[in-house]
This record gives sequence, C-alpha cells and structure tokens, in this order.
Amino acid sequence: MDIEQQQQFRAFTDYRWDDVAHMPYKEDGTAPFKAISRQLLFAEPQLGCELRYFEMAPGGYSTLERHEHMHAVMILRGHGHCLVGEGVHAVKPFDLLTIPAWTWHQFRATDGESFGFLCMVNARRDKPQLPTEQDLQSLKLHPAIAAFLA
Amino acid sequence: MDIEQQQQFRAFTDYRWDDVAHMPYKEDGTAPFKAISRQLLFAEPQLGCELRYFEMAPGGYSTLERHEHMHAVMILRGHGHCLVGEGVHAVKPFDLLTIPAWTWHQFRATDGESFGFLCMVNARRDKPQLPTEQDLQSLKLHPAIAAFLA
Repeated sequence: MDIEQQQQFRAFTDYRWDDVAHMPYKEDGTAPFKAISRQLLFAEPQLGCELRYFEMAPGGYSTLERHEHMHAVMILRGHGHCLVGEGVHAVKPFDLLTIPAWTWHQFRATDGESFGFLCMVNARRDKPQLPTEQDLQSLKLHPAIAAFLA
Repeated sequence: MDIEQQQQFRAFTDYRWDDVAHMPYKEDGTAPFKAISRQLLFAEPQLGCELRYFEMAPGGYSTLERHEHMHAVMILRGHGHCLVGEGVHAVKPFDLLTIPAWTWHQFRATDGESFGFLCMVNARRDKPQLPTEQDLQSLKLHPAIAAFLA
C-alpha cells in the first residue's frame, strides 16, 4: 500500500489508546480553559467526520465557545456539568449531548474527579468564536448559567 | 423553529437512551446473525456521519459481511471477539477497531455476557455483501478464523 495503514486494533488502557497521541492544551495564564487534553481516535477521510476524546482533570473546564458546526457528545468518564445554550446539565457516563450550530457551550469537571467525553464532528468545520463581555453578561442573566460560570 | 429540534440532553440508563428507539433485528431462522439490536444515537445531516450502538446478547453475533464504507468502532460493554480481515481480536470496553473498505468482519459476544459497541459510519454508504461459500472456505484456511467461525 502507498499510504500508511491504520492499525485495525488499538487497545485501551487507563484512558489512553495504542498509537493515539495525548495532547494536553497549553495554558499560558490567559487561556479560557483549564487542565484539558485531546486524543484523536478516528480521523480517516472516508468517514467524513472525526471522533475525539477530551478529558479534564478534576476542577478543569473547556473553553466557553460557539461555532457553526454541530457537536455530538457522549460522556465516557466521571461526572461533570455542561452548559448548552440556556441549559446546564449534570452528566454521567454514556449520557448524550447534542450541541447545535451557534450554541454557547462549556464542559466542567466535578471537583475531585477526572471527566472525559467523546466528541464527534464533521471533518470540515469552522473555527470557534469566544464570547464578548456583552455575551457573557447576557448568559449570566440566567441564574443557572451564572452559577455554572462562577 | 420550523424543523424538529433534537433533544440537547439524552440520559443513559442500562444501555438505553432517552428518545432513542431500540431496534432488535428480526431473526427468521436463516438470518446470518443472532440476538443483536441497534440504537441510532446521532444522525444529524450536518455531521456527515452517524453513530450507532449495537448490542448482542450473550452468545450473539453480528452478520459476517464486507462493504466499501469504513467502520470506526469503540467497544462499550462486555467482552467479545472480532474478526477483521485476517485477524481475530479479543476486545474489552473502550478498545478501538478500524474496519477498512472491503474487509470481512464479524463481532461475537463472549458467552454469558452482553457485548456492545459504538460504530461510526459515513452517512452516505453502500450496502453490505455476504460471503459466498468460496469466500468462507478461503477465510477458514486461517486456523484462528476457522475457530472463530466454528
């Protein structure tokens, strides 16, 4: 074969996988996320989409953002809370979340527990937008979101 | 909104999900599978792909088949064995399998245990092919496959 062949079997061990790079996000003090890493599990062009595994250390959180592309999420490890639009959901393993286009979203690990999820996305997608100060003020008008973001 | 909105949060309970239909495959005695069901977790057109959950009762197995489209698989429940091409893999939760184009594959649950996996596929895909008697004879030339199919 001319192209490198994907391993047909990749074993799981302690939330890492054979031949999958573990990519911690670099924090520079101003970044709007904390203690999060990414592993790209499937990204073959024939699939049309990618499957990633994101994990936060206890107390970690993802960037609050929105974009045109949709996220299809399954929780895999631990417990946390997810902001999706105007709702905040307490989630546990194998729960599903659908994040529609242009919907603000953020994931937060419960204290004392690592929290990980699968995220399926279209391989062709736009870059995320961060909230302006005005967006944040609007979000915080919802008491549940104000508590989540606090 | 004009179109029906996907629930943003769907809870998991005992390998079923809120608002997800459980679809057992009908067996008519001649069907080349046993005790298997399907649940379609994500199929939004924007994603370009679908995520399904297949589960076999103890001793169940999927159809031995091949097709042009690729499967991206993560084991979710129990233990089993998977035939992929010329290899037979013993698998456990969160292990990954990549099933390339035109590769024979079949999943078998370990006795005494339910066995389930996620399968990600392109939304646009071809229909599976079943093996001819000659294909089966060729596969059985591999001792590990002969034992798997026995």
